[in-house]
Amino acid sequence: GFAKIDHHRLMRQGFPEVVFCQGKTVDQVVKIVQNLAQCNNNILASRATPEMFQAVKEIVPDAQYIEIAKMIVVEREKKKSGTERFILVMTAGTSDMPVAEEAAVTAEVMGNSVRRVYDVGVAGIHRLLAQHEILQAANVIIVVAGMEGALASVVGGMVAKPVIAVPTSVGYGANFGGLSALLSMLNSCAAGVAVVNIDNGFGAGRLASIINQMR
Amino acid sequence: GFAKIDHHRLMRQGFPEVVFCQGKTVDQVVKIVQNLAQCNNNILASRATPEMFQAVKEIVPDAQYIEIAKMIVVEREKKKSGTERFILVMTAGTSDMPVAEEAAVTAEVMGNSVRRVYDVGVAGIHRLLAQHEILQAANVIIVVAGMEGALASVVGGMVAKPVIAVPTSVGYGANFGGLSALLSMLNSCAAGVAVVNIDNGFGAGRLASIINQMR
Amino acid sequence: GFAKIDHHRLMRQGFPEVVFCQGKTVDQVVKIVQNLAQCNNNILASRATPEMFQAVKEIVPDAQYIEIAKMIVVEREKKKSGTERFILVMTAGTSDMPVAEEAAVTAEVMGNSVRRVYDVGVAGIHRLLAQHEILQAANVIIVVAGMEGALASVVGGMVAKPVIAVPTSVGYGANFGGLSALLSMLNSCAAGVAVVNIDNGFGAGRLASIINQMR
Amino acid sequence: GFAKIDHHRLMRQGFPEVVFCQGKTVDQVVKIVQNLAQCNNNILASRATPEMFQAVKEIVPDAQYIEIAKMIVVEREKKKSGTERFILVMTAGTSDMPVAEEAAVTAEVMGNSVRRVYDVGVAGIHRLLAQHEILQAANVIIVVAGMEGALASVVGGMVAKPVIAVPTSVGYGANFGGLSALLSMLNSCAAGVAVVNIDNGFGAGRLASIINQMR
Amino acid sequence: GFAKIDHHRLMRQGFPEVVFCQGKTVDQVVKIVQNLAQCNNNILASRATPEMFQAVKEIVPDAQYIEIAKMIVVEREKKKSGTERFILVMTAGTSDMPVAEEAAVTAEVMGNSVRRVYDVGVAGIHRLLAQHEILQAANVIIVVAGMEGALASVVGGMVAKPVIAVPTSVGYGANFGGLSALLSMLNSCAAGVAVVNIDNGFGAGRLASIINQMR
Amino acid sequence: GFAKIDHHRLMRQGFPEVVFCQGKTVDQVVKIVQNLAQCNNNILASRATPEMFQAVKEIVPDAQYIEIAKMIVVEREKKKSGTERFILVMTAGTSDMPVAEEAAVTAEVMGNSVRRVYDVGVAGIHRLLAQHEILQAANVIIVVAGMEGALASVVGGMVAKPVIAVPTSVGYGANFGGLSALLSMLNSCAAGVAVVNIDNGFGAGRLASIINQMR
Amino acid sequence: GFAKIDHHRLMRQGFPEVVFCQGKTVDQVVKIVQNLAQCNNNILASRATPEMFQAVKEIVPDAQYIEIAKMIVVEREKKKSGTERFILVMTAGTSDMPVAEEAAVTAEVMGNSVRRVYDVGVAGIHRLLAQHEILQAANVIIVVAGMEGALASVVGGMVAKPVIAVPTSVGYGANFGGLSALLSMLNSCAAGVAVVNIDNGFGAGRLASIINQMR
Amino acid sequence: GFAKIDHHRLMRQGFPEVVFCQGKTVDQVVKIVQNLAQCNNNILASRATPEMFQAVKEIVPDAQYIEIAKMIVVEREKKKSGTERFILVMTAGTSDMPVAEEAAVTAEVMGNSVRRVYDVGVAGIHRLLAQHEILQAANVIIVVAGMEGALASVVGGMVAKPVIAVPTSVGYGANFGGLSALLSMLNSCAAGVAVVNIDNGFGAGRLASIINQMR
Ligand SMILES: Nc1ncnc2c1ncn2[C@@H]1O[C@H](COP(=O)(O)O)[C@@H](O)[C@H]1O
Ligand SMILES: Nc1ncnc2c1ncn2[C@@H]1O[C@H](COP(=O)(O)O)[C@@H](O)[C@H]1O
Ligand SMILES: Nc1ncnc2c1ncn2[C@@H]1O[C@H](COP(=O)(O)O)[C@@H](O)[C@H]1O
Ligand SMILES: Nc1ncnc2c1ncn2[C@@H]1O[C@H](COP(=O)(O)O)[C@@H](O)[C@H]1O
Ligand SMILES: [Mg+2]
Ligand SMILES: [Mg+2]
Ligand SMILES: [Mg+2]
Ligand SMILES: [Mg+2]
Ligand SMILES: [Mg+2]
Ligand SMILES: [Mg+2]
Ligand SMILES: [Mg+2]
Ligand SMILES: [Mg+2]
Repeated sequence: GFAKIDHHRLMRQGFPEVVFCQGKTVDQVVKIVQNLAQCNNNILASRATPEMFQAVKEIVPDAQYIEIAKMIVVEREKKKSGTERFILVMTAGTSDMPVAEEAAVTAEVMGNSVRRVYDVGVAGIHRLLAQHEILQAANVIIVVAGMEGALASVVGGMVAKPVIAVPTSVGYGANFGGLSALLSMLNSCAAGVAVVNIDNGFGAGRLASIINQMR
Repeated sequence: GFAKIDHHRLMRQGFPEVVFCQGKTVDQVVKIVQNLAQCNNNILASRATPEMFQAVKEIVPDAQYIEIAKMIVVEREKKKSGTERFILVMTAGTSDMPVAEEAAVTAEVMGNSVRRVYDVGVAGIHRLLAQHEILQAANVIIVVAGMEGALASVVGGMVAKPVIAVPTSVGYGANFGGLSALLSMLNSCAAGVAVVNIDNGFGAGRLASIINQMR
Repeated sequence: GFAKIDHHRLMRQGFPEVVFCQGKTVDQVVKIVQNLAQCNNNILASRATPEMFQAVKEIVPDAQYIEIAKMIVVEREKKKSGTERFILVMTAGTSDMPVAEEAAVTAEVMGNSVRRVYDVGVAGIHRLLAQHEILQAANVIIVVAGMEGALASVVGGMVAKPVIAVPTSVGYGANFGGLSALLSMLNSCAAGVAVVNIDNGFGAGRLASIINQMR
Repeated sequence: GFAKIDHHRLMRQGFPEVVFCQGKTVDQVVKIVQNLAQCNNNILASRATPEMFQAVKEIVPDAQYIEIAKMIVVEREKKKSGTERFILVMTAGTSDMPVAEEAAVTAEVMGNSVRRVYDVGVAGIHRLLAQHEILQAANVIIVVAGMEGALASVVGGMVAKPVIAVPTSVGYGANFGGLSALLSMLNSCAAGVAVVNIDNGFGAGRLASIINQMR
Repeated sequence: GFAKIDHHRLMRQGFPEVVFCQGKTVDQVVKIVQNLAQCNNNILASRATPEMFQAVKEIVPDAQYIEIAKMIVVEREKKKSGTERFILVMTAGTSDMPVAEEAAVTAEVMGNSVRRVYDVGVAGIHRLLAQHEILQAANVIIVVAGMEGALASVVGGMVAKPVIAVPTSVGYGANFGGLSALLSMLNSCAAGVAVVNIDNGFGAGRLASIINQMR
Repeated sequence: GFAKIDHHRLMRQGFPEVVFCQGKTVDQVVKIVQNLAQCNNNILASRATPEMFQAVKEIVPDAQYIEIAKMIVVEREKKKSGTERFILVMTAGTSDMPVAEEAAVTAEVMGNSVRRVYDVGVAGIHRLLAQHEILQAANVIIVVAGMEGALASVVGGMVAKPVIAVPTSVGYGANFGGLSALLSMLNSCAAGVAVVNIDNGFGAGRLASIINQMR
Repeated sequence: GFAKIDHHRLMRQGFPEVVFCQGKTVDQVVKIVQNLAQCNNNILASRATPEMFQAVKEIVPDAQYIEIAKMIVVEREKKKSGTERFILVMTAGTSDMPVAEEAAVTAEVMGNSVRRVYDVGVAGIHRLLAQHEILQAANVIIVVAGMEGALASVVGGMVAKPVIAVPTSVGYGANFGGLSALLSMLNSCAAGVAVVNIDNGFGAGRLASIINQMR
Repeated sequence: GFAKIDHHRLMRQGFPEVVFCQGKTVDQVVKIVQNLAQCNNNILASRATPEMFQAVKEIVPDAQYIEIAKMIVVEREKKKSGTERFILVMTAGTSDMPVAEEAAVTAEVMGNSVRRVYDVGVAGIHRLLAQHEILQAANVIIVVAGMEGALASVVGGMVAKPVIAVPTSVGYGANFGGLSALLSMLNSCAAGVAVVNIDNGFGAGRLASIINQMR
């Protein structure tokens, strides 16, 4: 009784309910994954600890663990993107990688090509300008940045594509757990930028996937 | 010297720089619009007062004013959408209309079909459920809501399309100028929802247009 | 001397003072429970650790521990509800359960029938609509939700009964320790919704009990 | 098209949709009231200006204006309470009266007996203690207070009835628009207290009415 | 070089510099106390861990540790109050005791008579009213309270003496680390109440001592 | 019925209830003053507009208006201080004067000698050091400062007397309506400093009076 | 008595006290300027209204008013910079100009060469890159920006000179009166950037002047 | 691929990219330092744990660890300051030392003379006044302070040199992680003070170095 799994979601939204593991017990995660595994080929669980993965693996042996993204993935039916369209995931710094990988893995499991360009923050703008070509080739762009989150605005001004900005909690002091990057991105002077929750790589990956698969 | 208009933007982003009138003098707005009018067919100015419009009209006689959206529009070259794809703009209440119209007018001037469904907030969920068909037909959805902004989550859970949530400053007390709706939308449990700044109808309209015109 | 137990409360409010264990030492909890046990049949202690329970049990052997709710319960005189009236406790997600159980156990120990409907958050609104019947049958409804807390508004709009909303700290990033759900619920567009402190299952259970036992 | 009036609400919740006038044009208010007047006997509009009332009166001549509460009332079918049960509305200070009257008028129009005890804030606790009798006689209590909002806790500790606390924005400095009273009430050490939005007299009145009419 | 001890303070302010141990290393605390011990009879160190005390004791053998207040005390010259004037320290709950004891010990070491009345929070106002006599007899009153901090206002309204309010971080959720009690006390409708920092028992004790020793 | 004047206060606290005019109508102020004037010799009303004063004067002809402090004063029985003890009111800047005068007038009407030293903020510390003598002579000190409010800490470190700090809303930007000075004063590294609400000159004057009149 | 002008400041800091007019009466401004004019050749008053200027001009006829910067300037002794060193003042948008001019005028009156580059915000990064030469030639750089304030980080990463960032309150919604730009600039990933208060052009101009005149 | 080291920075800004270790894995730190060590003589890594240092030392044996500053330093080419100009680093208290040392070490490694004056907070202003000579001799001043951060304003008013203020998170309660000192410093009434992020010793050291080396 503790979970009403939304089995209808695959039909309604093209992908089954994703398990958000944070705040759940190992036992609850196992039961929910087991339940999902009965009716779905592909399963995704985010914010999973290694311990949760071990417990899941005993019951769903083909589960995999992407450590940096803290994700459990079951991928029985390889979704094919069938196009050259790709999602570009960028970060301002090295420390933003876990969030970026959550986004990238989400998008890949949902059947998209993903390319990564990491550590191109605005303190050395030439690093970003050097990426001009891949920026123009991308179909959707996810920008992951902490501290002042300025990367989203600069990228947003360089392209005419959807830019999904993910503020991260990377930083200290007046960053107030990601608030500085969040406010920065919400106030972006570049039009065409939308924002998801602090550290919400999954949400960005999911939205990018929806946009990337529009026809 | 007071403004470096980004004449390159039409080429780079498919639409000229949009004039954000708030905080500018009437004189500055007129000079910027005049300058833009020399090299562009279509011009958009947001947060414009009637007084600004009068001054602009004397110099650019084919300028129009959309009062509820507080926008000045010059539309010499009708951009045609050429598809049945449309953007759906929804509001939770009647008071959210000015922001919704800023989004809708922006999207229309940028060449999109737009349909409007207003006043379907979650306090009477049947009003929303009755819109099931148009929700499924839409290509991109903009949800405009103040107070607790719950509409974005409910809509986000009903469709597999990009949902752009616009929190509004409509409300009072612990709404703190739109903060309640903003936080609510950022924390949406529905994946596929992204958020723009409080009352930022323009930003939502611009992003929706970019997504809607992807091929 | 460290505690002036409010022995008068049973008379004044129909139930003895409840021990709020958080921030107290094991020793203090034991002494307060022991003191209460001398003049009361039923005792409730919230936010109790297993260690506190062990210490209490040695002195009050009929004490029980409800782990998920972190509550110590002594129930010597079974309060009977004597009516079919029941309190409905709902949660948006699985992670909200500890708070929901604090509410449910409180209400039960105070002599109410309680029914539980968990994990019916608005991202899959059909899960909620499927509960229509029990919603209409309930006498008082407690809605427990974290993240954007939208469930309270939707439920509040479906019924004409008292809805007590409990925001939880479940979430991350811009949820700021429950602030997002709290503001969301305070700004609910549905009339008839009142809010208690973040994670305050006890307070909700107590208020629901008072309302449910009105004649 | 600008408003989807929830005509179903009378049936679903026992009272028609209440018009929240703040942020609406005079014209919109008139049209919505006119529309409601066609299918309902009793109409309530909150946060209405005198100007709005004048415009409404021309079309609905039996409309009345309660100035201190800023409410427009149409009451064709006197709802009778038929019981001695009454709702007690209390304020801490004289300046809290407009909010208290919004609550009281709402409850009265919805068919409840209401009694008022104003200006009994805790700085002179004897004023409150002198009200002991009426406190014990009341069925539901609404406590309206600004500044530090302590009245709710003291009242909540004196009775075993539902206490609905309404923080007001009365105060200055570190009251931050009502935040101090709001946080104070949410953290009340008295169980059985629930809180509505800052200055939300309407919400408190509506909830009190629902509770008061339970059988 | 790491500390410029204010040896002048005994002369200037009647008591030597008090060591605030939080954020200092054990080694730094020892060196500062040692230094102070050379020119002063009485020494006070606040927020000291047991480990710090052990290290200090080896060098200053007559140092004592008051565990609940987390204070190290060296008291070689017993300051005598020589009057019946006393400082009253009150708390709302049991959990506020550590802060209250920091205040009480500070005042005692500085030569004042102190009396304690704990756990008389406003949720059971009769507990406070029962203390009427001691309230009237006190010379200065320190009120220590967390959660909604209402006790300060009620006490402030009952007496015509200086009331020093100490908000504590006791509570959870929307208490935001003591913010609720702090704002509550700052907005007190009772005149004659002043506030010190959250959990700042030392500051309250010091100020009470200064006032109590005025002639 | 709108006000329960606390006539008991003169007896309980040595001075009648003070009228806080902000948020009251002219009519309400007049009625409350009139009522107080029947049983009291001395009356004080704060935050009064000139318009309120005019209306009051018609009924209480011996009322006076102190414009800079926005106070109405009726002083029929000159309270004599009868001692050389005086309260020192200091400000950091010229703009803090209205708040300082509210404090000074309050203290004077309550029978204290008051001396003023204005515009001695820490940006020119020699201005403060030049006041050494008067600082040492004062009995109680009120420090009124906006912006960073540092004056309170410096003064607090120079004397061994009660320092009452009043943060003002003077400033702009990250002063957030007085928050910067408020937090600064609450975190003062000088012991013996207590804080009242932002701009609360009255509260500071009242408390200073109580302390100054202790025997 | 209302102002203790810091006549010592010219000697101590090389420039007389600057009059901050906001929150002062016209009369106070006139008296302070008059007083300063007796012992100083150059006078600066910030945040002055046209009305204040008119009153000052009657007494100090050689006073000038820089409208956009809201500054009154008396410049009898032209301070010469005597070097080619110049301060560069940049803005992200046109609306930031008033703050930028407050900085520029301050620096000029204090004897510095100033050059201006306005409206080069990061949404069109080519506009900034085009300024490469002047950026390299400048001695000190002041960056004035509202909204997300990203310009400071990009500039800070391009040069090895002191960058003084001035956040402005330009923006709306989640800009919260300049908070977004402020936090953004404080969290800048570019080293060598320091921040002054929101809209504090004067402070930036003063600091730039000090640095520019170091030898 | 995880880091795009900005090798261009030495040329552009006179010092190679500094490694910010917080939030990076030991492995990432080692790889980045190794990479930097190939093209640079001097390397600086901030917020490094002892464990990170051990791992770095195995690969870069001439690396040193400054424990109190948590910095790894490789200094192969001693940068000489070649002038008597020095940077003065001051702290208000002993607990601010780690931040101050981060600043001092940064400035030293970048080739500056540094002098330290610690524990001269404003609660004993004579301690600061005693430093008058060194204050006048310094070329640039870094003020490090937590709690109310008043030291920056007092110092800023005593000199005509660049003052870089570093708020620290030292304190408790309403210090809110350094917010009180941050706001205090941003609102400084002393002109010529600029602020960096809370606890950002590195940023202050870097900016001081740039200013100190200007010619
Ligand atoms: N989870 C809870 N949240 C808030 N208050 C509670 C909770 N559990 C118990 N209480 C109340 O806290 C009070 C006890 O406070 P104390 O005197 O500190 O033990 C009692 O009046 C209870 O009604
Ligand atoms: N004072 C009030 N505060 C909050 N909500 C209100 C108030 N008055 C009316 N309402 C609600 O606001 C809703 C109307 O919103 P709208 O569609 O914008 O007119 C109705 O559902 C009312 O229940
Ligand atoms: N725009 C400004 N922002 C901040 N401080 C200023 C400004 N203009 C002048 N000041 C400073 O404000 C102080 C004057 O404060 P007051 O004594 O209230 O006039 C002077 O020390 C100036 O250095
Ligand atoms: N303590 C510090 N605070 C802020 N920034 C720093 C600190 N230490 C190093 N940095 C900067 O952080 C950047 C490195 O970020 P990352 O690419 O994530 O390693 C470099 O540009 C440094 O200038
Ligand atoms: Mg990097
Ligand atoms: Mg509506
Ligand atoms: Mg679920
Ligand atoms: Mg009153
Ligand atoms: Mg208790
Ligand atoms: Mg001054
Ligand atoms: Mg521009
Ligand atoms: Mg010290």
